[in-house]
Amino acid sequence: MRILVVNVNTTASITESIGEQAAGAASPGTEIVPLTPVFGAESVEGNYESYLAAIAVMETVRAHREPFDAIIQAGYGEHGREGLQELFDVPVVDITEAAASTAQFLGRSYSVVTTLDRTVPLIEDRIAAAGLSARCASVRASGMAVLDLERDPQAAVDAIADEAARAVQDDRAEVICLGCGGMSGLTERVVERTGVPVVDGVTAAVTIAESLVRLGLTTSKVRTYAPPRPKRIANWPPQR
Amino acid sequence: MRILVVNVNTTASITESIGEQAAGAASPGTEIVPLTPVFGAESVEGNYESYLAAIAVMETVRAHREPFDAIIQAGYGEHGREGLQELFDVPVVDITEAAASTAQFLGRSYSVVTTLDRTVPLIEDRIAAAGLSARCASVRASGMAVLDLERDPQAAVDAIADEAARAVQDDRAEVICLGCGGMSGLTERVVERTGVPVVDGVTAAVTIAESLVRLGLTTSKVRTYAPPRPKRIANWPPQR
Amino acid sequence: MRILVVNVNTTASITESIGEQAAGAASPGTEIVPLTPVFGAESVEGNYESYLAAIAVMETVRAHREPFDAIIQAGYGEHGREGLQELFDVPVVDITEAAASTAQFLGRSYSVVTTLDRTVPLIEDRIAAAGLSARCASVRASGMAVLDLERDPQAAVDAIADEAARAVQDDRAEVICLGCGGMSGLTERVVERTGVPVVDGVTAAVTIAESLVRLGLTTSKVRTYAPPRPKRIANWPPQR
Amino acid sequence: MRILVVNVNTTASITESIGEQAAGAASPGTEIVPLTPVFGAESVEGNYESYLAAIAVMETVRAHREPFDAIIQAGYGEHGREGLQELFDVPVVDITEAAASTAQFLGRSYSVVTTLDRTVPLIEDRIAAAGLSARCASVRASGMAVLDLERDPQAAVDAIADEAARAVQDDRAEVICLGCGGMSGLTERVVERTGVPVVDGVTAAVTIAESLVRLGLTTSKVRTYAPPRPKRIANWPPQR
Amino acid sequence: MRILVVNVNTTASITESIGEQAAGAASPGTEIVPLTPVFGAESVEGNYESYLAAIAVMETVRAHREPFDAIIQAGYGEHGREGLQELFDVPVVDITEAAASTAQFLGRSYSVVTTLDRTVPLIEDRIAAAGLSARCASVRASGMAVLDLERDPQAAVDAIADEAARAVQDDRAEVICLGCGGMSGLTERVVERTGVPVVDGVTAAVTIAESLVRLGLTTSKVRTYAPPRPKRIANWPPQR
Amino acid sequence: MRILVVNVNTTASITESIGEQAAGAASPGTEIVPLTPVFGAESVEGNYESYLAAIAVMETVRAHREPFDAIIQAGYGEHGREGLQELFDVPVVDITEAAASTAQFLGRSYSVVTTLDRTVPLIEDRIAAAGLSARCASVRASGMAVLDLERDPQAAVDAIADEAARAVQDDRAEVICLGCGGMSGLTERVVERTGVPVVDGVTAAVTIAESLVRLGLTTSKVRTYAPPRPKRIANWPPQR
Repeated sequence: MRILVVNVNTTASITESIGEQAAGAASPGTEIVPLTPVFGAESVEGNYESYLAAIAVMETVRAHREPFDAIIQAGYGEHGREGLQELFDVPVVDITEAAASTAQFLGRSYSVVTTLDRTVPLIEDRIAAAGLSARCASVRASGMAVLDLERDPQAAVDAIADEAARAVQDDRAEVICLGCGGMSGLTERVVERTGVPVVDGVTAAVTIAESLVRLGLTTSKVRTYAPPRPKRIANWPPQR
Repeated sequence: MRILVVNVNTTASITESIGEQAAGAASPGTEIVPLTPVFGAESVEGNYESYLAAIAVMETVRAHREPFDAIIQAGYGEHGREGLQELFDVPVVDITEAAASTAQFLGRSYSVVTTLDRTVPLIEDRIAAAGLSARCASVRASGMAVLDLERDPQAAVDAIADEAARAVQDDRAEVICLGCGGMSGLTERVVERTGVPVVDGVTAAVTIAESLVRLGLTTSKVRTYAPPRPKRIANWPPQR
Repeated sequence: MRILVVNVNTTASITESIGEQAAGAASPGTEIVPLTPVFGAESVEGNYESYLAAIAVMETVRAHREPFDAIIQAGYGEHGREGLQELFDVPVVDITEAAASTAQFLGRSYSVVTTLDRTVPLIEDRIAAAGLSARCASVRASGMAVLDLERDPQAAVDAIADEAARAVQDDRAEVICLGCGGMSGLTERVVERTGVPVVDGVTAAVTIAESLVRLGLTTSKVRTYAPPRPKRIANWPPQR
Repeated sequence: MRILVVNVNTTASITESIGEQAAGAASPGTEIVPLTPVFGAESVEGNYESYLAAIAVMETVRAHREPFDAIIQAGYGEHGREGLQELFDVPVVDITEAAASTAQFLGRSYSVVTTLDRTVPLIEDRIAAAGLSARCASVRASGMAVLDLERDPQAAVDAIADEAARAVQDDRAEVICLGCGGMSGLTERVVERTGVPVVDGVTAAVTIAESLVRLGLTTSKVRTYAPPRPKRIANWPPQR
Repeated sequence: MRILVVNVNTTASITESIGEQAAGAASPGTEIVPLTPVFGAESVEGNYESYLAAIAVMETVRAHREPFDAIIQAGYGEHGREGLQELFDVPVVDITEAAASTAQFLGRSYSVVTTLDRTVPLIEDRIAAAGLSARCASVRASGMAVLDLERDPQAAVDAIADEAARAVQDDRAEVICLGCGGMSGLTERVVERTGVPVVDGVTAAVTIAESLVRLGLTTSKVRTYAPPRPKRIANWPPQR
Repeated sequence: MRILVVNVNTTASITESIGEQAAGAASPGTEIVPLTPVFGAESVEGNYESYLAAIAVMETVRAHREPFDAIIQAGYGEHGREGLQELFDVPVVDITEAAASTAQFLGRSYSVVTTLDRTVPLIEDRIAAAGLSARCASVRASGMAVLDLERDPQAAVDAIADEAARAVQDDRAEVICLGCGGMSGLTERVVERTGVPVVDGVTAAVTIAESLVRLGLTTSKVRTYAPPRPKRIANWPPQR
């Protein structure tokens, strides 16, 4: 099977890193196709950028010429998953939801540790929209921006592990979801620091997408995610 | 004061009708500036179209060269309000939220009557995102598409009035919010049929936007709606 | 239009100050009529006093001989709004609800800062009764009694600004509602200390009442706020 | 021990009937003191009347010259319990809450069947204020006014039993709370019609009040129900 | 009347102490029958032990040869109450629910103070299952194991009183429920330390069970607690 | 990897059928080990039987002598998953939760269709305990007992498909979870009748268990699911 893993920002090195992470979790016989959106912010850290990414991801998948069996939207706390579900029949898995859903099988409550304080509300809203708030103990920010993670990985890893430890101690989280990109060694460090299972959204999403495909399940088209009605779309997509 | 009233779809006649409705509710001294988005669907009735509209509305306001004091996003159950709040300091009022917020002052619970069944979840999600679900008795669809409203206004008015009556009788709504565009005579017909107050989102939004401006209030910039951080946006906006 | 602004306590100087605040927010052509209840506590800070005020406010408005277009109940976290809605057809606006409803247009969450710890539950209950809890981050008390506000305004302003800052920092509030009377300079000081928008209930209520009147909207009479059924009321109102 | 059972309306025959019901449930050694409020509506069926009753009940108990061990507020869905808790140290039991709390020990969910449709929201709000909504399946109205119950008891009993049967069948209630006065034969008829346990608020309240007194428990005075602060109350209570 | 009070663990001295506590709260004419389960853990402090206790309690009551009028399950935060309700017609009262339900009549919110941190989620889940979460301010652990309470009562009393004080101060609890066994002097010490009413589950349960019996109320058999259908149970109960 | 799939009832033919269903969904290299509990009801349809099954499943797995990588509890709406999580480190997947969690990736809301009316509350409680209620549109019963499904499969299939259609139409479900055993042709028939995706709990659980194992994730042991403390367990397990 072939799974598209679509980055939400336009930094190619992040796409590459997400792609590797996804491939590492894939079963034999699964092909991971990492995609970078055709337009948008180099890193997505707020509503405007996330709405832009939502459309960019949809257009990028629409422009993809090869067949595929599932789509993973690989951004934390992003808008847009509902649009992908309308446009395509194959399963669509958002990594924020994949992580939360997986975490719920491992402990009574989970916390998400993310980058900047301003992305906390976006993640909370995405979790709420997916009906996964009841067991969410907290969403916490480490204060590191997305691109800081690439610039000073060691400081980022420490800040994130500290915040995760606070979630376990103060918010009574029993599982941690990592709401930020694939730094080497991050998961191990947080497990070591907190003693709780740590879920990464990209790898969780790969196993969920594979499972849905293997079970022959596709998006319900009966109401919310029915295909768009045929109509005139003015000035879109832009000519390039 | 000058208030931008931005249509979410690209049908100019609807922009015109919304503009007239808004102007009718404005105080002396308020200038209403109706805008049609620079790209997008002729009518917005689902997630893909709504995400596209979200970005189109933001870009349309960004491209506006005159100063303004408030923004009204004039679509029912649409994505995007949070992005406008990030990009601009002036108050942003979504008409779905304006209607619900106004209805809550008039009765113990309210229902929304909208067009197609598929837009019901979008409206429910918008109301939830705004924290206005607790007094929402129901969101009901009349089965009429947006463009049907223009094509056969009398049938539309009847279908909507019937659905409103069901909301009052079966869901115990005490106020009706009209989740669809400005047809002449619609409000009167629904009041007559149900005996309850009927709130129109566009006119409610105009009075709220004026109130916020008069009170000197602007969007909080402390966290969720802080301005986007400076960064590179690739291939955007599209060249035209 | 003429708006009654009814104080909940019997201290005339507070009525006067509320009246001035309201008049300052009113549009040209709006007449503000401040009223002091005919009986009750000099300041309302608990359930017994608030229930007494509820009835006193209703009787005061019933005894008012001039026509009016809207009623504002100018007390924070008080009982009684539902009774006024039954007795009269014109819109009734409670200032606790007006502030919360306004705050929700400005930020993702709001906190209320009030006087005494004992009034916190009353405010929480009023907000819940109005369906406005979902975006309420906290209700906090400054520890200053209502009459302290008049006696040592500077200490009061400082205590309130400190509590507001804690709400923004610890409870992640993005807007502050002031749940206490009109001290000069209070709003400015809290804005300065917290950097977030500050909403005053009285002025918010004036703009909402004006808006409802302008839109021709009145209280729904279909169920909860239907007029009292004709019946014998023993020994009431008291002879004076 | 001596328990005050305070009617909320001024119809003495209802006080008498409530008193008899209460006495029938009391333990040996418990004295039931039925009281009629000193002012107010002959029957309480809405917010204005209920707020009036709230104050009338408080003043009636304040004027009571004999010692007592507990207070029962014997009205369904009424305002005021919180004020009684402030004014007195002894336990205060509201019959709506007593019935709901008792019902929860007997089945997974309960419904309340009351008189008029307009009192449904009052009961819902009282249940919510007491934190007892989670297991409330529905509040339903039989359409009979309070005084109808006295005028045509047989028709009332039938209408109520029918509504109770609907609650069990359609709302999946497993217990019925009777939200209306003590008609002879009512409980038996509803049990027979529905096959589920039927809880009467007055008798439930008597056993709860007795239990609290026997356990030596009194109202918490630490915050919400602290005694009113000493202050000037203007023109109250009225001279008679 | 005769009430079975069933311990959840197999330590006979605890059964004895619970029995004495229950007898102290019983009315004249009520016989308390304390029972120790026929198998299970010496102290119950987690899910496995609690599920085992659930079945052990049911089998112990099934094996009881004398008639009885009510059953009290005397463990804090335990599984199993629903099974007892299926097997027997008489009222079943869980002490966690009895304490919470009683506390709600005394203050606006309550906290539970229990033994080990690991039992906190069990108590939270039991409270939620009973629909009593809305007014629960917190469940807090003192860190003392069940058997520690017997070994060093004074240290236990101090640890519990400290935790109760934190619940009142930090979580705004107005009543404390003691979620741990009957140590002499515990209740007095917590009242003294916190100034709020303290509810003990066993004594609260006795008064509730007595009340239900006196009112002639029994478990609803209409759906959730209908008797088990006749069927083959393999290898159960075990031969002894 | 080796996954234990534990039936909750003692009917061996059901264990066999569950085992085949599970094996059909397993990846190459996964060994499915179906187990029948060592004691308990031939079919589990209520609280007593389910509590008995909870313990029987735990004891059955404890007695299992081969190593294993994950446990699936294959009963709908059953007690006990929390106990398994305490006793073992490997992931534990309950089929009710597996189905719900999977359904949430396919549509905005899901309904469960089960056997008897009396099991509806058990399923609702299991879904609530797992934090998966927010997107649950309804739990509906077909009226067929577990063993009826084996006796008259065609009638069962029809009854279930009809109920599923009602969930889609009346409760607005977009996905159906089948809360009953593996009848041949059931899934196909319900898909055909409703047009929405249909999720089977056993197969969903297999893919989730495999995913957790592949990702190296195990149950959090930090609080709720910490191993039982060492202590004396009297008279257990029973000698056979």
